[in-house]
Amino acid sequence: MLNPVTPEFEARLRAQLPPACFRDDARFFEEPRRKWQGHGLVVAPDSTEDVSAIVRACAAARVAVVPYSGGTGLVGGQIVTQDQPRPVVLALERMNRIRSRHPQENVLVAEAGCILADVQRIAGDMDRLFPLSLTSEGSARIGGLLSTNAGGINTLRYGTARAQCLGVEAVMPDGSVLHGLTRLRKDNTGYDLRDLLIGAEGSLGVITASALRLVPRPVATATALMVVRDPDAALTLLSRLGEKAGESISAFELLHGTGFAFMDETGIAYRRPFDHLPDWSVLIELGMGEGQDPRALLQDLFTEAHGLGLVSDGVIAASGAQSAELWRIRESIPAANARVGAISSHDVALPLSAIPEFIARGVGAIAAIGPFRVNAFGHLGDGNLHYNVFPPRGQSPRDFDALRPVVMRAVHDLVMGYGGSFSAEHGLGRLKPPELERYGDPTKRAVMRAIKSALDPLGIMNPGAVLGV
Amino acid sequence: MLNPVTPEFEARLRAQLPPACFRDDARFFEEPRRKWQGHGLVVAPDSTEDVSAIVRACAAARVAVVPYSGGTGLVGGQIVTQDQPRPVVLALERMNRIRSRHPQENVLVAEAGCILADVQRIAGDMDRLFPLSLTSEGSARIGGLLSTNAGGINTLRYGTARAQCLGVEAVMPDGSVLHGLTRLRKDNTGYDLRDLLIGAEGSLGVITASALRLVPRPVATATALMVVRDPDAALTLLSRLGEKAGESISAFELLHGTGFAFMDETGIAYRRPFDHLPDWSVLIELGMGEGQDPRALLQDLFTEAHGLGLVSDGVIAASGAQSAELWRIRESIPAANARVGAISSHDVALPLSAIPEFIARGVGAIAAIGPFRVNAFGHLGDGNLHYNVFPPRGQSPRDFDALRPVVMRAVHDLVMGYGGSFSAEHGLGRLKPPELERYGDPTKRAVMRAIKSALDPLGIMNPGAVLGV
Repeated sequence: MLNPVTPEFEARLRAQLPPACFRDDARFFEEPRRKWQGHGLVVAPDSTEDVSAIVRACAAARVAVVPYSGGTGLVGGQIVTQDQPRPVVLALERMNRIRSRHPQENVLVAEAGCILADVQRIAGDMDRLFPLSLTSEGSARIGGLLSTNAGGINTLRYGTARAQCLGVEAVMPDGSVLHGLTRLRKDNTGYDLRDLLIGAEGSLGVITASALRLVPRPVATATALMVVRDPDAALTLLSRLGEKAGESISAFELLHGTGFAFMDETGIAYRRPFDHLPDWSVLIELGMGEGQDPRALLQDLFTEAHGLGLVSDGVIAASGAQSAELWRIRESIPAANARVGAISSHDVALPLSAIPEFIARGVGAIAAIGPFRVNAFGHLGDGNLHYNVFPPRGQSPRDFDALRPVVMRAVHDLVMGYGGSFSAEHGLGRLKPPELERYGDPTKRAVMRAIKSALDPLGIMNPGAVLGV
Repeated sequence: MLNPVTPEFEARLRAQLPPACFRDDARFFEEPRRKWQGHGLVVAPDSTEDVSAIVRACAAARVAVVPYSGGTGLVGGQIVTQDQPRPVVLALERMNRIRSRHPQENVLVAEAGCILADVQRIAGDMDRLFPLSLTSEGSARIGGLLSTNAGGINTLRYGTARAQCLGVEAVMPDGSVLHGLTRLRKDNTGYDLRDLLIGAEGSLGVITASALRLVPRPVATATALMVVRDPDAALTLLSRLGEKAGESISAFELLHGTGFAFMDETGIAYRRPFDHLPDWSVLIELGMGEGQDPRALLQDLFTEAHGLGLVSDGVIAASGAQSAELWRIRESIPAANARVGAISSHDVALPLSAIPEFIARGVGAIAAIGPFRVNAFGHLGDGNLHYNVFPPRGQSPRDFDALRPVVMRAVHDLVMGYGGSFSAEHGLGRLKPPELERYGDPTKRAVMRAIKSALDPLGIMNPGAVLGV
């Protein structure tokens, strides 16, 4: 069993660390969807040595450690609730240095507390691109992005957070430091501990710094919003675009008419791209090199797809400002969803070819539960949909609290029937360990438990997250 | 302690499995560099169920299991030597089915015994590219390629074997089957067991099948061989090419004059690309999409680099046949090396920017040991050099057996001083566990041992490989 932080424990920690390490701020106990309310002693070290000292102290006293990065996670991975022994909340925000820059190697080494937008900007100053990009990039921090293997809008082209990381430094559950900040592209010297820590949501150790891969900045970019006949037409369009543009597709996002309707309903301003708001549309971004013309390519694609009946209308941005307007539509959807208030939100992945049938069958499955509205949108190119279910207009999601588990079960059952995933990019946190119990391969669960026990025998690292224990 | 295969154990296994599973063939006990001589009972199951049954039987009797894929590994990972208890050699060659093809998703599911060249061909039939490519592709099999996280010539663009794999099926050390053949691009539902098994060289389980990522086939390709001033000029050329061609650089290989000299010396025929064979040259391959002109881009690059004094001569292939001739040079170097016979071969990686200094200092370090010849060549774009040291002309490498460890120590000390790797793409096998002991981070080694003990408490899976125990 774990012990709570006691006054004696806190006093010992305060004697050991500079006063600047200690925080008294309730924001560490909240999370964006306000599903959980946490507690703990917030400690914000500014060095790996101090992280190590804190974890050692917690191990000695068998006190839980909850790594806290940007706090933007949506599944409660950063929150220990008040029914659990009071933990140390290990805030990484002061570990926010860029340790080194290597433009010739397309690498920078960043501490875990660096904010994503800052890393993007610093990469830009190096005339490079750090390709991870997502809605919360202004506050999400690198440690949490890696620990949850975050996705976002450029995954199709560049991969998830995992693919952006060449090496990590981490503090393990016994306080020892894993020195793995390699800048190498190839290093086959033993087990892949980097990728084990990435996506482990702080349950196997705390990532304190990482060597991040940068990529060349596309020289020419182009953005288009095209009205597609249906999700199947969107996939055909993606496939044809892949043949034309190879690896130059930076984003391929599916939008549903519900998203536009919600922006109208909740008063989110945007420039209407079409007179009639479409049921289904895709937002496409290409990024290409010298001497290439991505706008012409999108124009060709549109002409061809129009001839095939795949698309009926479209806008190709003529300027950076027009491109930003199109992206603002996509980026406003989560805010509109939040204002309407979902009964249940799902972050699912499917094999690409199963998506049209999944969307079609989803309509019937949700209608069988209640007169709900569905906003299915997201990273079509990755097979990753955000599939969120909302009450009828004028009603509160709280009116349907009792149906939340029924909705989630229906969606996840349908997804898993296609060999999909019930957590494409958000992780498990404290929301989805029961889903892992229900749907996860028994051998996978057994191996995960064996690894957790081997690396964290006291069970102090982010208890309750990922495995539910 | 492990037990040897006994006649009783063999009889039980023969009673349980079809006769076609049993092999009597000494080729399973040899490896390409003839450093190790193995032994064992060779069993070649043709189903995951039979692999599971074999591993269960071995676990019950505490008999070692050595997974054997294509047998092309260079570090002895596939060989249990005769001073160790006689193991079961688990040959995967009969598990060679393509389980499914998903062209719309750019995925195929292949069993572990599929030969790489066959997978490349099948991907081609699907109008896709399976981008893993290396010298031994005609005999290397998928299971071993994943278990060693193989590299090769296209890693710069597409990543190592790890990056080609979306999911794995594996038999764990207790015989349980990990069902992880996901075709998803995103799936954040727990620890990354796929990447733990990839690169574990069979020491944590046996990969039996995998979902492999395919990519669009480049529509237009171009190949060039350019004479560079020195390795630093080669890196500047690479950087400039990256700005022009983005992700279209499929290969960027460094060749040294020693390679040409060895081909001449050992009678390997090739078409001489230049009148004077250059000290340093780079072989470049671009692959681009519709409407792009990679030959023109290489021509521009050459003109610009010539103006800057980076390159002094060059050949841009005008046909597929000419391209093949240039590639034949690169691909003949390992054979020429083998005919000359190395004292010590090293598969090292370095941060890109350290390579010129490493090569320069290597000359002095080797000269201080003996009058040796060095062939430093390989995957410059990945920072991965094959750094092989040879006797003076007319002498045998065996004359210098006593100096082999001295040479290896000098090379690896130099590499590790730059934060490099002593095994970039070959793995550890039974050759390099002592190097891991010497150079590996102590926390990394401790975590690796903890994982090994947790997943394989009996120590039956490929004992001696990776960790040396």
